[in-house]
Amino acid sequence: MKVIEIAEWLGLPYEGEANRNVEQAAPIESAGPAEIAFAQPRKARREVEDSHAGCIIVTLEFDNAAGRTIIRCKDPRATFAKIVARLHPPKRPEPGIHESAVVSPSVRFGDGVSVGPLAVISDHVEIGDHTTIGAHCSIGTGARIGPDCTLHAAVTIYERTEVGARTILHSGVVLGADGFGFNRTSSGYEKFPQIGRVVVGSDVELGANVTVDRAALGATTIGDGSKFDNMVHVGHNCTIGRNVIIVAQTGVAGGSVIEDWCVIGGQVGIGDNVRIKSGAILGSKSGVLTGKILPGDGQVY
Amino acid sequence: MKVIEIAEWLGLPYEGEANRNVEQAAPIESAGPAEIAFAQPRKARREVEDSHAGCIIVTLEFDNAAGRTIIRCKDPRATFAKIVARLHPPKRPEPGIHESAVVSPSVRFGDGVSVGPLAVISDHVEIGDHTTIGAHCSIGTGARIGPDCTLHAAVTIYERTEVGARTILHSGVVLGADGFGFNRTSSGYEKFPQIGRVVVGSDVELGANVTVDRAALGATTIGDGSKFDNMVHVGHNCTIGRNVIIVAQTGVAGGSVIEDWCVIGGQVGIGDNVRIKSGAILGSKSGVLTGKILPGDGQVY
Amino acid sequence: MKVIEIAEWLGLPYEGEANRNVEQAAPIESAGPAEIAFAQPRKARREVEDSHAGCIIVTLEFDNAAGRTIIRCKDPRATFAKIVARLHPPKRPEPGIHESAVVSPSVRFGDGVSVGPLAVISDHVEIGDHTTIGAHCSIGTGARIGPDCTLHAAVTIYERTEVGARTILHSGVVLGADGFGFNRTSSGYEKFPQIGRVVVGSDVELGANVTVDRAALGATTIGDGSKFDNMVHVGHNCTIGRNVIIVAQTGVAGGSVIEDWCVIGGQVGIGDNVRIKSGAILGSKSGVLTGKILPGDGQVY
Repeated sequence: MKVIEIAEWLGLPYEGEANRNVEQAAPIESAGPAEIAFAQPRKARREVEDSHAGCIIVTLEFDNAAGRTIIRCKDPRATFAKIVARLHPPKRPEPGIHESAVVSPSVRFGDGVSVGPLAVISDHVEIGDHTTIGAHCSIGTGARIGPDCTLHAAVTIYERTEVGARTILHSGVVLGADGFGFNRTSSGYEKFPQIGRVVVGSDVELGANVTVDRAALGATTIGDGSKFDNMVHVGHNCTIGRNVIIVAQTGVAGGSVIEDWCVIGGQVGIGDNVRIKSGAILGSKSGVLTGKILPGDGQVY
Repeated sequence: MKVIEIAEWLGLPYEGEANRNVEQAAPIESAGPAEIAFAQPRKARREVEDSHAGCIIVTLEFDNAAGRTIIRCKDPRATFAKIVARLHPPKRPEPGIHESAVVSPSVRFGDGVSVGPLAVISDHVEIGDHTTIGAHCSIGTGARIGPDCTLHAAVTIYERTEVGARTILHSGVVLGADGFGFNRTSSGYEKFPQIGRVVVGSDVELGANVTVDRAALGATTIGDGSKFDNMVHVGHNCTIGRNVIIVAQTGVAGGSVIEDWCVIGGQVGIGDNVRIKSGAILGSKSGVLTGKILPGDGQVY
Repeated sequence: MKVIEIAEWLGLPYEGEANRNVEQAAPIESAGPAEIAFAQPRKARREVEDSHAGCIIVTLEFDNAAGRTIIRCKDPRATFAKIVARLHPPKRPEPGIHESAVVSPSVRFGDGVSVGPLAVISDHVEIGDHTTIGAHCSIGTGARIGPDCTLHAAVTIYERTEVGARTILHSGVVLGADGFGFNRTSSGYEKFPQIGRVVVGSDVELGANVTVDRAALGATTIGDGSKFDNMVHVGHNCTIGRNVIIVAQTGVAGGSVIEDWCVIGGQVGIGDNVRIKSGAILGSKSGVLTGKILPGDGQVY
């Protein structure tokens, strides 16, 4: 793609060689003449000076004294993300059900669905248009997966789970395992039956080996646009709002509510029946005791 | 099931419409006229008032001034758990070995075993009566699984592991991976061979993505009736007693002993060669240094 | 194996019954007359006295007043590890591709490779000589696995990942899932594309359910000889050096560097863009804030 083509596609000003061709994106330190990179605003001067990149994304104010080939914008990182996505579109497998997959005859597939080798799709499952189910995924009875989702290899979804549109689930994700509920007796613990389910919204992304437990009754829910890093654990009957960020290895115990736009750091422990109000930010490794109500930032986004 | 049938089955007093039919269990906030719910003792008055449930489980002392249809008992939550289990029995798959499973001819199956699609069962494995092996499970050579167990999809069991009766293993559980033991040399670390195994008792439940490592020599053991939440890690040569509760994301390093009836919170870190005595309760996110001995509660259950 | 054979193989002095046969290794407490054990130097006197082991590995200085059959050496544990490895060699499956595996015709196999049941190996993958791929493993397009590796059952490797020689990956390991990078907008989070990859060195061992994320650009790297315990998480663009030990449930956020020979305890949280210098030791449950530089021990190994 030529520099001028990128600039025009994004409606951004450029300087330098309009016809230079950039084939791929690269980190600014290692980018070569056929690659595009971005400079971090605070280190831009030095990064640009040291770089061999064919084109560099910089801020509107950047001083291009050296006359490099650049594209100017307000937020170089976000602009670069768009260019990366265009130059390196994710490779979607061809639509079709791999012959080695085990698929119940009662499954309802949308158009253009891809099911990978050795996946298992149980009775009465519904899979939306253009969704990709990776190798070794298991989808339990009656689950519903929306359109344009990507389930990477080895995702396990228990019965009756729902997933919205455009959601990405990484390998090792487990949705719908039983919540952790027991009644103590003099001879041992008796299981409190877990007959609810998990409902995951649209535009969600869950990292590798994340687990979300089904509700005892009702549903554990993950709101639209929320993003979880690897190994996050969400207990039964939690309600996670929209656009919530949860960093790796954080755990949320049963019945807690995390409202919209919260940002929860890594290795945080959230007790049961906690409420974290909209827009709150919790530092990594923090802990929130059972039943606490945490104020948000007072802002409604 | 009619209210009178439930009350008579449990031997409990009821009030109100004896012949009202309840089809399923529901949370008290959302339960409708054909559903049964329970009220938490401390909030019962208000919960019952606001609920549309067809029947509500309450304490013996509850003041039923409004004349609702109720069943009285000592512990509403525990009684409700029994009713849920009866109204919503877990669906067991039909017995039989799915044609896509890869099963060694030397496997010995009990009666009524169910093996799901694409499971792998290696040489000399024994599976007890009425046990269910989910899709994509792998059972290593010489492992023995007792009767009436449920292995959900994608459980991985290494060679020579033993599991008792009625034990439930959720998806992503790994039993018998090598313990973490190395000898440092001037050029790198040499692996201390891990030739022991894992022995899990009866009536155990392990949550999604739990890992229990094999012993270097001898066995890592999980006692009868113990229940682990998701992503608990148990290192090599640990001895976990009977009826031990371990909440999510807790780790137990090599050689530690947790005696019967302990309750370990979430994200706890227990160093190696620790002994936690019977009945001790450890708060979430606590840490126990290597070699410590923690007193229990002085009571033998 | 006779005691004299073991002693001569290792070039170590022995005392007692030269022709006693030891068939297997065992813990000193439970070892019987046909078994070999080792005594911990600080407790050796009592351990040897109480043991029925046929032969015991002790220090050079041990006082063998009781005239037991012993082998003397500088480091009994390390010597015992060598003997265990010899008496109990890991059982490698027979070479060959299991007929149920789904293998692209473009895969290039070395000599003596074993591929287990129901594994999936995608286009253009290369697998080195004598490497074992367990049941239910998925190897993504263009990945390269070196010689003499062991992938236990249910390892998931995303496209373009590289693994060196003699590396061991335990069940549930996920290599190459997307790093956690998003740009916040007023309407939600936009994914920063993750187009880099994961490069794991030689002689590495990764425990059960470990996750290593691919780089946004470039590579996340794990150096030769490093060993991770279960459920370690390594974020995108991290650089882990050679011979680094990371204990269970530790997380390393994006872009951090851990230099050679560091030892990181369990449940440690390392923020993003941290540098931990060579030989540093971090205690379990410690935390390192974003951007910090930690000194090493000043020694270059």
